[in-house]
Amino acid sequence: MVKANAFYAQSGGVTAVINATACGVLQTAAEHKDVIGKVLVGANGIVGALNEELIDASKESKRAIAGLRSTPGGAFGSCRYKLKPYAEDPREYHRLIEVFQAHNIRYFFYNGGGDSQDTANKVSQLGARLGYPLQCIGVPKTVDNDLPVTDCCPGFGSVAKYVAVSTKEAALDIESMCATSTKVFVLEVMGRHAGWIAAAGALARDQAGDPPHIILLPEVPFNRQQFLRRVKATVAEKGFCVVVVSEGVRFANGKFVGESGAAKDAFGHAQLGGVAPVIANMITAKLGYKHHWAVADYLQRAARHIASATDVEQAYALGRAAVKLAVAGKTAVMPTIVRTNDSPYRWKIGEAKLSKVANVERFMPKSYISKDGFDITARAMRYLRPLIAGEDYPRYKNGVPEYVRLRQQRVAKKLPEQW
Amino acid sequence: MVKANAFYAQSGGVTAVINATACGVLQTAAEHKDVIGKVLVGANGIVGALNEELIDASKESKRAIAGLRSTPGGAFGSCRYKLKPYAEDPREYHRLIEVFQAHNIRYFFYNGGGDSQDTANKVSQLGARLGYPLQCIGVPKTVDNDLPVTDCCPGFGSVAKYVAVSTKEAALDIESMCATSTKVFVLEVMGRHAGWIAAAGALARDQAGDPPHIILLPEVPFNRQQFLRRVKATVAEKGFCVVVVSEGVRFANGKFVGESGAAKDAFGHAQLGGVAPVIANMITAKLGYKHHWAVADYLQRAARHIASATDVEQAYALGRAAVKLAVAGKTAVMPTIVRTNDSPYRWKIGEAKLSKVANVERFMPKSYISKDGFDITARAMRYLRPLIAGEDYPRYKNGVPEYVRLRQQRVAKKLPEQW
Repeated sequence: MVKANAFYAQSGGVTAVINATACGVLQTAAEHKDVIGKVLVGANGIVGALNEELIDASKESKRAIAGLRSTPGGAFGSCRYKLKPYAEDPREYHRLIEVFQAHNIRYFFYNGGGDSQDTANKVSQLGARLGYPLQCIGVPKTVDNDLPVTDCCPGFGSVAKYVAVSTKEAALDIESMCATSTKVFVLEVMGRHAGWIAAAGALARDQAGDPPHIILLPEVPFNRQQFLRRVKATVAEKGFCVVVVSEGVRFANGKFVGESGAAKDAFGHAQLGGVAPVIANMITAKLGYKHHWAVADYLQRAARHIASATDVEQAYALGRAAVKLAVAGKTAVMPTIVRTNDSPYRWKIGEAKLSKVANVERFMPKSYISKDGFDITARAMRYLRPLIAGEDYPRYKNGVPEYVRLRQQRVAKKLPEQW
Repeated sequence: MVKANAFYAQSGGVTAVINATACGVLQTAAEHKDVIGKVLVGANGIVGALNEELIDASKESKRAIAGLRSTPGGAFGSCRYKLKPYAEDPREYHRLIEVFQAHNIRYFFYNGGGDSQDTANKVSQLGARLGYPLQCIGVPKTVDNDLPVTDCCPGFGSVAKYVAVSTKEAALDIESMCATSTKVFVLEVMGRHAGWIAAAGALARDQAGDPPHIILLPEVPFNRQQFLRRVKATVAEKGFCVVVVSEGVRFANGKFVGESGAAKDAFGHAQLGGVAPVIANMITAKLGYKHHWAVADYLQRAARHIASATDVEQAYALGRAAVKLAVAGKTAVMPTIVRTNDSPYRWKIGEAKLSKVANVERFMPKSYISKDGFDITARAMRYLRPLIAGEDYPRYKNGVPEYVRLRQQRVAKKLPEQW
């Protein structure tokens, strides 16, 4: 193999462990100096490649690179940017190849969700067509846990642990208060299409019947009457009711429940509220219970302080495996997590063709959702439980985690700005 | 001293460490069996005394009592219940004395905020007036940190740590995304009247200029124009803007900013939204930036998983001190935290008369608020920093914290139900 440079980029919504994957990529690339020269990282994701804004990872200290393993967010910047279909506008794809050629980049590591795997796949095809030798390796990442083939996605285990822990804690709070005050607590979590994150709320339970009492998934159409009946029955039996709701829960007509809260505020602005307040207000209006609600938003996917040790380990291992696949001469593949045993949990690294991964969303299977649609099954619990196992605490200084900051030294541009 | 029983109750909104105080009370009472018999605990706070619903703490295992130190929420139940003024309705006060007499209770430990200290003070006066020997000791607790005399309040340090850590993590997330997507993040935290909790967001910073860029306190009237100008300038300079807002922030006319978001949802319900979405929508409407917002609600005050070790230690120490004060023959007092040095931080236990504590709210002093009203001062940082120091992790099992559950065995009633 000829020695060449590598390109790495972070894509889409970031996670508590995407930097652990970056750490795995960078440390492993450094072990293969015979074939991999520098790792050039896209500033703010793939747009960094399009704009030839490249960060020279070799200028970062070993200590900073190691610190990436326990730093949340995307340390090199990420982006929400989907390349246009090649048939519609081939310029972006050609520009990528042009930038790669200018910087002698022959390894392309793209760390993201389904869209990113699709991009990596298309770039690999184009490289082949243009006769430019480019090895494209997708590296999985998404809190949504919705990539196919891989048993789970790095980022998910940590957000799942955050949701389980937070649900357990808030449930103890409301249980203390319910005799004279708040009777319903609603926690809104991420998941526009797939309910994996909301499902993880069930891991808060020590035993059946413990909170959360109701889980609302995007896979199950929201039925207001049945839901309110269930809340009422739960408060009658337990004295309080804890609901975990996925932001993407919809009515049978496909409309987001969260959207039904849209209204004008005092300034005449559209008030897009999130689904938790809509659900909570619905309960108080119809059943009269005092409520509290929380919207975790970025807190959940950035919560490195309560990351799953399993997730951190897998995120790192996938970064390592991506480089190993490249060094082994592979292209258009993505390393995956293969589960070999549930309990005790065992896993190994596998690989999937990008063509099998691109643009496929994995939803909660029917066998994971309870018949009444308000809970998950024992089978789902068996799947989810090991993914939140273990704690991997960051170091603290002055009472807060010591997260690293990179130098982000840019590589000199070699191409004209206009393309 | 004659040996008699003690009564303990948890009052008001619970915290991550109120059970650590209970642990201190119960373990210390057990060391003074010569004067303190059983500790009888009010089921759901003071209403447990009024209804003669008492939990016999001696029936709990030593292991469970020890586990209270790392369990959030109120393990015996709390309540939002303020006794009516004595002049208006003396019956409740007389009922308390009647229940205490029936169960040979001569020590009254009331664990709560300003209202509870007032109740404890009044009960002590009534006991004296009726010739019933009762030692009333207030035990401080409130995430709001608004009790006077004491340097800080147990519960606050942990919610402050949660807010600092969460702000730091979410800021890394949005910084990753801001080049192509979200530019503003708004985190809503507790604090109806005093801004201590929002102020703690500033502890997220490693250095000046780091996020959060704007802190909105209830002590400072909200000026929409100035706020929007500051957001715009911050995005221009930093590329993104992180705002921590206290739920209690108000306009100059006294109206809560959160209330201006009140509107009818699709079902015609009043939609009380919280202040974060109002602020976030205001920014998007006027400046066009994409936003994200989070409302931490109960998650912040229940977050035992990220409790401040300092706060846990002080909460426990105050429980111990309360019993020591009783054993020393004191009444109508509350143990306090006295700061003896800022850096290195040193503190000791002091005591305050309940009459000095009752019904006084402590706000952020002017010297703690920056001139422009959007930040806190170095002096405030010096006060806040040590309160979040140290981590005190609970034990984990199956990926979630192992929090204790009590047996809560009730004591047989001795009085008629009607009173």
